[in-house]
Amino acid sequence: MTQSAAIPARSALRDPLPLLQRLLRCPSVTPEDGGAMAVLAQALEGLGFEVKRLDFGSEGAKTPNLWAVAGPIEDAAGKPAPFLCLGGHTDVVPPGPDWAQPPFAGVVADGSVWGRGAADMKGALAAFVAAVARRLEKGPLKGRLAFLITGDEEGPGRHGTRAVIEWLRAQGVRRPDFCLLGEPSNPTHMGEIIKVGRRGSLNARVVVKGVQGHVAYPHRADNPLPRLVRLLDALSSTVLDEGTERFAPSSLQVTSIDVGNQATNVIPGSAEARLNIRFNDAHSGASLTAWLEAMVDRHAPGAALHVDVSGESFLTPCGHDVALLAQCVEDVTGHAPALDTGGGTSDARFITHWCPVAEFGLVGATMHKRDEHVSLPSLEALTAITERFMVRMGV
Amino acid sequence: MTQSAAIPARSALRDPLPLLQRLLRCPSVTPEDGGAMAVLAQALEGLGFEVKRLDFGSEGAKTPNLWAVAGPIEDAAGKPAPFLCLGGHTDVVPPGPDWAQPPFAGVVADGSVWGRGAADMKGALAAFVAAVARRLEKGPLKGRLAFLITGDEEGPGRHGTRAVIEWLRAQGVRRPDFCLLGEPSNPTHMGEIIKVGRRGSLNARVVVKGVQGHVAYPHRADNPLPRLVRLLDALSSTVLDEGTERFAPSSLQVTSIDVGNQATNVIPGSAEARLNIRFNDAHSGASLTAWLEAMVDRHAPGAALHVDVSGESFLTPCGHDVALLAQCVEDVTGHAPALDTGGGTSDARFITHWCPVAEFGLVGATMHKRDEHVSLPSLEALTAITERFMVRMGV
Ligand SMILES: [Zn+2]
Ligand SMILES: [Zn+2]
Repeated sequence: MTQSAAIPARSALRDPLPLLQRLLRCPSVTPEDGGAMAVLAQALEGLGFEVKRLDFGSEGAKTPNLWAVAGPIEDAAGKPAPFLCLGGHTDVVPPGPDWAQPPFAGVVADGSVWGRGAADMKGALAAFVAAVARRLEKGPLKGRLAFLITGDEEGPGRHGTRAVIEWLRAQGVRRPDFCLLGEPSNPTHMGEIIKVGRRGSLNARVVVKGVQGHVAYPHRADNPLPRLVRLLDALSSTVLDEGTERFAPSSLQVTSIDVGNQATNVIPGSAEARLNIRFNDAHSGASLTAWLEAMVDRHAPGAALHVDVSGESFLTPCGHDVALLAQCVEDVTGHAPALDTGGGTSDARFITHWCPVAEFGLVGATMHKRDEHVSLPSLEALTAITERFMVRMGV
Repeated sequence: MTQSAAIPARSALRDPLPLLQRLLRCPSVTPEDGGAMAVLAQALEGLGFEVKRLDFGSEGAKTPNLWAVAGPIEDAAGKPAPFLCLGGHTDVVPPGPDWAQPPFAGVVADGSVWGRGAADMKGALAAFVAAVARRLEKGPLKGRLAFLITGDEEGPGRHGTRAVIEWLRAQGVRRPDFCLLGEPSNPTHMGEIIKVGRRGSLNARVVVKGVQGHVAYPHRADNPLPRLVRLLDALSSTVLDEGTERFAPSSLQVTSIDVGNQATNVIPGSAEARLNIRFNDAHSGASLTAWLEAMVDRHAPGAALHVDVSGESFLTPCGHDVALLAQCVEDVTGHAPALDTGGGTSDARFITHWCPVAEFGLVGATMHKRDEHVSLPSLEALTAITERFMVRMGV
C-alpha cells in the first residue's frame, strides 16, 4: 500500500496535541462519524499499523469501527509475544449550549485543549497514538499492539465493540494479554484511579393494570396505584447487599413513574414505573430478575415486568498486568492509583469477555458537560504512562 | 310584560316531551348555552313565572343562570306559605362519537327520547315544567314555587348555582322550605333512590423534590421517589373510616403519579402525585387537610402539598319533606325509594347551605355516555311525582 499524502509522518505524531485537535474538529456526535475514524486510521497507518475498518450494522446506518495491528505475534523463539490492546471510542455526546470555546474547534487556551470529547475520550486516543510513535523511535516492536476503536460507545453500541469482538473471535484472532481502555478514569487529577471492573446494570419496567373508573365509585374500579407504590416501596427499601471486596453496595433507583391521568375524578386503568439497578459481583442479571419477579408476584401480582440486563458486573483479576499499569501510573504521576469499580458502564463490559481489561485515561471532571477540556500536562502524562506500560509489558 | 309569540301556552306544556325535545336541540355543552336557557325562560313565562336571568361572570364569558318565581309567599292569614324550589341545570357534557341517534336532535325512537342531556338533566327540567303546568290546571298556586337553573353545573360552576344563591341571600329572598334537584338519581329504574346527601370531595397534589443525578452515582443525587411511594403507600392503605349511618366509607384514590423521566440512567429531581378523597360526615376538608399534612411531614418531609376542597360532605335531615317526597315516589312508581348519599358531587353541595335539598330525577344509566336516553314512561312518572309532591306540600 502506498502512503497517501494524508497519512502523517511518525515524527509528527509523537506530540498528542495536533492529532487531538484534528479529532476534536470532527463533530462525531453518536451516530455521526464526522470523519474522526479516518483521521485515526491515517495516523495508525502512518505508524505502520495494518488497519481494518469493521463497520457493522444496516446499510446507510453503519457503525464505524476500526481494528489495527502492528508488531510480531510471536517472539524469535516462536513463543507468543506480549500482546497489548488499546481500546477506545471516537464518538461523543452532544455538546449542548453555552460553551466558552466552540465545542468542535480544538482550541488551546489556558494550558488546556477545549472541545467535546477532549476527556471522553479523543484525548486518550491521541495519547495512545503518540505513545506508540515514541515507542517506535526506540526500535521495532517486540510484541503485538492492537487498537480496537468504535464510533458507538455513547449510543446503543449494538454494532460497536461487541460486534468487533464477535468478529475477532470468529476469525480466530489471538486474544490480547491485556486491554487498556482510555476512558477518563481520574475524577480530579492524573493518577487517581484505575478502573478494574464495573458494576452491572439492569433496567426494568413494570406495568400494573387495573380497571379505570370514577373516583366516586371506587368499588366499580380497580386502582393499580396502591399495588404499584407498595411494590416500589418494597423494592426501594430493600438493602441488596453491603458491598463486596472491590465493589460498592448495589443500588436500586426508581427512575420514573408515569400515569398521565389529567382528570382528578378518574381512577386510572394502568400505571407504569421504571427502575435501574447497578449491581456488584454479589448478584447477576439473572438473580436480580428472579428477585424482581418474586417481588412483583408478592406485591403486584399479574403486573407485567420487562427486564433488560444491559451489562453484568465484572472484575478484572488484579494480577501482574494491573500491578504493572499501576506502577507506571505512579512512576509518571507520583500518585499510587486506587483500583476502583465505581461509576457508569463502558465498553469494558464487552471487552472483559475477551481479555483482561482495565480503564485508565484522562481527568473526567468535565466529561459530558459543557466546556469539556483536558490540561496539556495531563495529556503528556497519559502519553508517558502508556509508552512506559508498553515497554514494561515487553511490547 | 306582553307575552311574545315564542312563549308557549300552558296547555302545550302539560306534556314534557315537546319541551324536552326543544331543550335537546340546543347544543348546550358547558360553557355554551346553545339557546337552552331562553327556551326554559319562555316556558316559565308561559306559566306565569316572574323570570330573572342572573348571568354572572366576566364579560364575554358569562354563565347563564335563571331564577323564576310564582305563587304567593304568604297565605291568606299572613303566615309563610309553603315554598318549594325546583333546581337543575341546562348544560351537558360533550357527546363524544358513535351515537346511534344524533345527540342534539331530540329523536323519539323505541319508546325513548334520545340526546345528550336527556337524563342529565333536561328531561327533569321538562318534567318539572310539565308538573307545574298540570298543577295550574287545578287552580291557582297556594304556595310559592321557584326554579333555580344554571348553565354551568358540569363545568367549574364558579358563577353558577353558588353565585345565584349568594345573590339571593344578598337580596334577602326567603329561603325555600325544600329544594328538589332533578339530577338523575335512579341507577336503573324510576323509584330506586332519593339522594339526601353527598360525600365531600378533596383533591390534593404532592410534589416531592430531590436532587437529579446519574443512577451510577446515587450518593451524589437524592431520589424523591422512595419518599413519594412510601407516602402514597401509607395514604392508600389507611382506612379512613368504616362508614357512618347514612354514608359509605370514605375513599382515598391516588389518581396519578408523574415523573416524565425518559432517561433510564437519570435519577429524577422531582416527582408529583395527585389524589382524590371522597369523604363522609366523619371528616371535614380541614380535618383531612391536617391529616395529609401530618402524613407528608412523616413520610416525605419538605414536600409541597396543595389541597383543594371542592365540597364538604352534607346530609339533609330526613324529616317531613323527604318522607313526603319518598311517599310520592312510591305512590307513582310502586317502589319505596332508598335514601342514599353515594355517587359524585352535584350543585346540591351549594344548595344545602341555603335550604334542605334532595335529589330525585330520571334514570341515569346512560348519563355522560353515548346514546343517552330516557324512556317516555319515566318522563311521565317524574312529571306525576313532581306534581304530586307540589300538591302534597300545599303549593
Ligand atoms: Zn467514554
Ligand atoms: Zn347533572
